[in-house]
Amino acid sequence: MAGPLCGIRIIEVGEVISAPLGVMLLAEQGADVIKVEPPRHGEESRQLSNHRAGMAGLYANCNHGKRSIGIDLKTAAGLELLYELVRGADVFVQNWRPGAAVRLRVAETDLRRVNERLIYASVTGYGDSGPYVARRGYDPIFQALTGYVAAQLNPEVPIPDLVRNAVVDKATAYTLAQAITAALFARERGAPGQHVRVSMLDAGLVFFWPDGMLRHTLVGDDVENPMVPGERYQLTTTRDGQLVVWAGTAEQMRGTLRAVGRDDLADGPGQRGREMLRPENVAERIAAFTAGVAALTTDEAYRRMLEFEVPAAPILDHEKVLVDPQLTHNGTIVEAVHPIYGRYRRTRPAARFSCTIPDPTPPAALYAEHGDEILAELGRDADARARLRAEGVIR
Amino acid sequence: MAGPLCGIRIIEVGEVISAPLGVMLLAEQGADVIKVEPPRHGEESRQLSNHRAGMAGLYANCNHGKRSIGIDLKTAAGLELLYELVRGADVFVQNWRPGAAVRLRVAETDLRRVNERLIYASVTGYGDSGPYVARRGYDPIFQALTGYVAAQLNPEVPIPDLVRNAVVDKATAYTLAQAITAALFARERGAPGQHVRVSMLDAGLVFFWPDGMLRHTLVGDDVENPMVPGERYQLTTTRDGQLVVWAGTAEQMRGTLRAVGRDDLADGPGQRGREMLRPENVAERIAAFTAGVAALTTDEAYRRMLEFEVPAAPILDHEKVLVDPQLTHNGTIVEAVHPIYGRYRRTRPAARFSCTIPDPTPPAALYAEHGDEILAELGRDADARARLRAEGVIR
Repeated sequence: MAGPLCGIRIIEVGEVISAPLGVMLLAEQGADVIKVEPPRHGEESRQLSNHRAGMAGLYANCNHGKRSIGIDLKTAAGLELLYELVRGADVFVQNWRPGAAVRLRVAETDLRRVNERLIYASVTGYGDSGPYVARRGYDPIFQALTGYVAAQLNPEVPIPDLVRNAVVDKATAYTLAQAITAALFARERGAPGQHVRVSMLDAGLVFFWPDGMLRHTLVGDDVENPMVPGERYQLTTTRDGQLVVWAGTAEQMRGTLRAVGRDDLADGPGQRGREMLRPENVAERIAAFTAGVAALTTDEAYRRMLEFEVPAAPILDHEKVLVDPQLTHNGTIVEAVHPIYGRYRRTRPAARFSCTIPDPTPPAALYAEHGDEILAELGRDADARARLRAEGVIR
Repeated sequence: MAGPLCGIRIIEVGEVISAPLGVMLLAEQGADVIKVEPPRHGEESRQLSNHRAGMAGLYANCNHGKRSIGIDLKTAAGLELLYELVRGADVFVQNWRPGAAVRLRVAETDLRRVNERLIYASVTGYGDSGPYVARRGYDPIFQALTGYVAAQLNPEVPIPDLVRNAVVDKATAYTLAQAITAALFARERGAPGQHVRVSMLDAGLVFFWPDGMLRHTLVGDDVENPMVPGERYQLTTTRDGQLVVWAGTAEQMRGTLRAVGRDDLADGPGQRGREMLRPENVAERIAAFTAGVAALTTDEAYRRMLEFEVPAAPILDHEKVLVDPQLTHNGTIVEAVHPIYGRYRRTRPAARFSCTIPDPTPPAALYAEHGDEILAELGRDADARARLRAEGVIR
């Protein structure tokens, strides 16, 4: 059996991360995705970041499993081709700035005329209206506006930092993928085709909120223990590096002491029951643990934590992530060779289905790689395709 | 019309963030969720973090829209009650450690016997087998193992940091929500009930990968421009603070110069076309911009960036996020009053549907708040409920 979204066709005109990554999650579950890219060089992220033989790494990572066609939507014939594609599709996805779709005549009302049951999905930076609507949005900007940067404050360092991966872009992608899937489910049960809207600003805040905004969840001065987990996140310094240790239960907290040879403290009266929470006992426990780990190498400290069942991990550099034994066991990282752009790595989808097991998706397409194939499916013979090409309608 | 998942019933026994937050996303789209909590104090996160009058902030933020019942699954009668609930449900969700469901007789095979079409969803830390399977997993541990911490390196600071919000927990939640929705969609089209599995380790890496692992995507030494966006993320220092500026296009880069009064440079030959990319011209542009911003207050610098259409944002502290004009316009933050635990804030879902508009969900339930109501739906009269309570089967 094929993936859970087998039989669904999606037309995507997304750019960079948010919409393309969201749609890729659906392609990896069996949806048939046609990516319509602008003329000349294709989608913006093909120009960005690291690349080889016409493939950019970021494009590859957000576009596995899609077919690519280059269409100039500013020509009447190009627009007509897009309408034809949409007529046979279930979903259309764009992440243009507000107003662009109307100008291009690819707004919901335009596409609803050719396909009444279409799910029309749009990603905006800030929403379809409001004070920031005309601004361009990028991941680090949203991080600053929705609390991530203010929270990224190491108590040992005087200035905040950004989260150094595109967390808001990706939160938006996941929000979009789930919402499109929900709209498809609802349509299957009789709901009409509809418009699904996600703004990056909202998606960024909603993703940050559950733990990040804990101090602003219960309102008032009478809230006990106003603790945010991320404020307690810290690295423990070893003799030759750092280790992440996260002792959540009483047993694990005593384990941190046993792991550094302080059974005397672990077995003492200050480290059980309510006594453990007294500030002086917390301080004594942390001081003993910190001193003990500082005398060990990272490897030694890690081994001892595992031995005493204290949750801990070394900071794997990215080379080591690639060969981590559990990730290897899970088959999470896949390496393959593309005939043109060569060796590449990708991840398998994190969600595994026991029945609707998706086939592995083909690698990211070269620009306009499937133009002929897709036009042939639309009934254009070689002559018609050559004409479209000569007229600059397709690449 | 109600939300897209209206008509779906989910039985959840999730703990803390990953499974509860994933299920909450579905509750917010209209799914009817019954949360079955352990006897005595209920789900673990009720004990954690900031709280007032029996409600913890973290529990609230991951459990809006669910009903709560307390059942001791270690009693035969409690297990039978759970089976009865599952018989009438579409989805069952747990995030226990591997093996726990088998011991409790709530594994997929157990529940499949009472409901053949059930979607059984499980979240594990590391997977169902493999070298780390017996370890307990927590968000900061997964961050260390999947590249987040190694990447969280500010060039101006000698040691890495963690991402200071539970990004892996939440990536897992979103992965889970989408996968459950996809399994429901597939079932609607004829697929059987199935098991959906998500491991936090995999979900963490898959979320990090698209931009975070760019240097390891195309394999080999012949890759041009091996740049990772997050490595370029930085704060720009103003006279009284910092600003996030992200100039991606040539026009925006020239805008950074105009905004600090350096039209001379912006209009010069070094800041157009390919000349802009020469290292000495990049350095000159950045130096002029940095010096210009350092002489301005954050407010002034921000205003100038907006004036010249350079993407920029101040680092909003969390109090200011709450009153941001665009978030206010979008209605993203909702404040309400619960009769017991008082004033609280939450976010509206980021995905907005034009047709299947979900009703706002009720606030997070007090522990076992809906026990009587749910048992009555299962046909237990007041006498039967009192007996169950007296026997310690339900709270």
